[in-house]
Amino acid sequence: MGINIINANNKMKQISKDLLVERGVSIEAIAQIVYDLQIKYIPKITIEDCKDAIERVLDKREVQNAILTGIELDKLAEENKLSQPLETLINSDHPLYGIDEILVLSIVNVYGSIGFTNFGYVDKLKPGIIGKLDEEGKQPNKCNTFLDDIIGAIAAAAASSIAHNFEDDKE
Amino acid sequence: MGINIINANNKMKQISKDLLVERGVSIEAIAQIVYDLQIKYIPKITIEDCKDAIERVLDKREVQNAILTGIELDKLAEENKLSQPLETLINSDHPLYGIDEILVLSIVNVYGSIGFTNFGYVDKLKPGIIGKLDEEGKQPNKCNTFLDDIIGAIAAAAASSIAHNFEDDKE
Amino acid sequence: MGINIINANNKMKQISKDLLVERGVSIEAIAQIVYDLQIKYIPKITIEDCKDAIERVLDKREVQNAILTGIELDKLAEENKLSQPLETLINSDHPLYGIDEILVLSIVNVYGSIGFTNFGYVDKLKPGIIGKLDEEGKQPNKCNTFLDDIIGAIAAAAASSIAHNFEDDKE
Amino acid sequence: MGINIINANNKMKQISKDLLVERGVSIEAIAQIVYDLQIKYIPKITIEDCKDAIERVLDKREVQNAILTGIELDKLAEENKLSQPLETLINSDHPLYGIDEILVLSIVNVYGSIGFTNFGYVDKLKPGIIGKLDEEGKQPNKCNTFLDDIIGAIAAAAASSIAHNFEDDKE
Repeated sequence: MGINIINANNKMKQISKDLLVERGVSIEAIAQIVYDLQIKYIPKITIEDCKDAIERVLDKREVQNAILTGIELDKLAEENKLSQPLETLINSDHPLYGIDEILVLSIVNVYGSIGFTNFGYVDKLKPGIIGKLDEEGKQPNKCNTFLDDIIGAIAAAAASSIAHNFEDDKE
Repeated sequence: MGINIINANNKMKQISKDLLVERGVSIEAIAQIVYDLQIKYIPKITIEDCKDAIERVLDKREVQNAILTGIELDKLAEENKLSQPLETLINSDHPLYGIDEILVLSIVNVYGSIGFTNFGYVDKLKPGIIGKLDEEGKQPNKCNTFLDDIIGAIAAAAASSIAHNFEDDKE
Repeated sequence: MGINIINANNKMKQISKDLLVERGVSIEAIAQIVYDLQIKYIPKITIEDCKDAIERVLDKREVQNAILTGIELDKLAEENKLSQPLETLINSDHPLYGIDEILVLSIVNVYGSIGFTNFGYVDKLKPGIIGKLDEEGKQPNKCNTFLDDIIGAIAAAAASSIAHNFEDDKE
Repeated sequence: MGINIINANNKMKQISKDLLVERGVSIEAIAQIVYDLQIKYIPKITIEDCKDAIERVLDKREVQNAILTGIELDKLAEENKLSQPLETLINSDHPLYGIDEILVLSIVNVYGSIGFTNFGYVDKLKPGIIGKLDEEGKQPNKCNTFLDDIIGAIAAAAASSIAHNFEDDKE
């Protein structure tokens, strides 16, 4: 059965977006982070530009795969369905775990290496929805270890996409 | 409880090695792949050198994290404990999934970028235990989607470690 | 002056293609490698499909940047215009140098992590033009340390692009 | 001649350190960035701990390679010895160039993926010596396009090394 779904990119995209909503993340909330990252460089940018860029990022198969895998691991950790010590590593967002950062590299990379800087920056400062997810993840029975990195990576990739389009417009 | 385990690197290493054995992978089988990769460049190399190099790779926290996470996903896929369509993507080792390759980057990277070449090579040719795992993973109720990449990455990293040591000996 | 050129993606692409030709690499020669990589999986594939995929890869800014930078370093090494010991590291394609593999990561990544496997494979086996460049680079006053990795990475990315398109066609 | 130097890791390290000093970067200046990154998490940390961590990072062959290559490109750009349009791309630190971020991935990765966050953060905020290099690089006849990323990457890797050691001490 899954075959039709997983070969259909548009269905994979919808499933990914539904998962983000289920975990409390709206496209608007991510767009706000992208806007704050880019307004300094592109004063004429709008929230709509940022939402369009996020849609382009979510079109990518590697982004959909990372969303599906990361959120699954968060949910399994919350439900205590992972083996030890992995469950503790993920539930505690252990500083040496690092698989969350590795997983989202496939998202950060989608528009080239210029995404790295923005990813690290938002991952450290945790603006807007990212900080909210990080706080929420510290509650018992709640785990956002992968999700906050996923959102930071989507925002960073969307910012890269906007930078590419803006530079091309300069020609 | 997990806290003591996850802060003790030697316990994390033992758990990782036990998991490999549980999934049918011996250090000897990986050492054979490393040996075949390096004998052309270092004629005096021994299987013992290769086993030592694998032990050094398994000492690394990022390698342990990748082993724990990847094998967990394989096992959950086998036991039909993942959501759809993720379960189908992992169980079928879907050509566009790619998270297995991303996850093991943290292993391949452990001794620098010279590991990439060997990783791609063994991932494509699937020598020895890697081919066996790949075949086994095609059986119903069996999934080695992450494991075969993990073994290829450990072998590639061990080969890099040997190359580093050998070059330093030349001084 | 350079400003207009570097903001015009199509000019950057033409410069990159001209550089490849100057160094003895035709799109046809790369297409043959892509074809040999994919014919096993997609029997109906044509050389034209492979050339189209390479053109898509060369459209990407990060690929153009890697081509310009890598070939420049090869040429400077050939002309003895680099400082020591960098010149010797690059001219000898030193096994621990590894910056060539790192540089082309931005190419390999362009269609996601599924490019890693093909890159490592061709980098090791050196089919067609890659083997020819590798041999040529061993001659005195000739250096292809970056170029052979660049060609392998373009071929691997093109193969990934074809795999993405083919899977989408299955829907 | 270069052969003895490039096979001797300690000589490669000294050359790398000399290059940093030649370009105006002291170990102390990098240590201050590492200290500011880690004091929040490890209140007992000292500047000496940070300097030790930087020395460990500089011991790594892949770090030395990145330093040698990146600073060479900066210097060649300054001296107008690169071809166009590469010279303009590097001299202007063009927002779509991105090879500087790719090159230093080999440094950031040295202690695993936890370095990404710190790298992006310092690359964006440009504390201390990084900001100074960035400003200096905007002067005519001066180029620090690669150097500021190299310093950010060394600081991020050193912070990762400290985090690893500190967690191991908790056992």
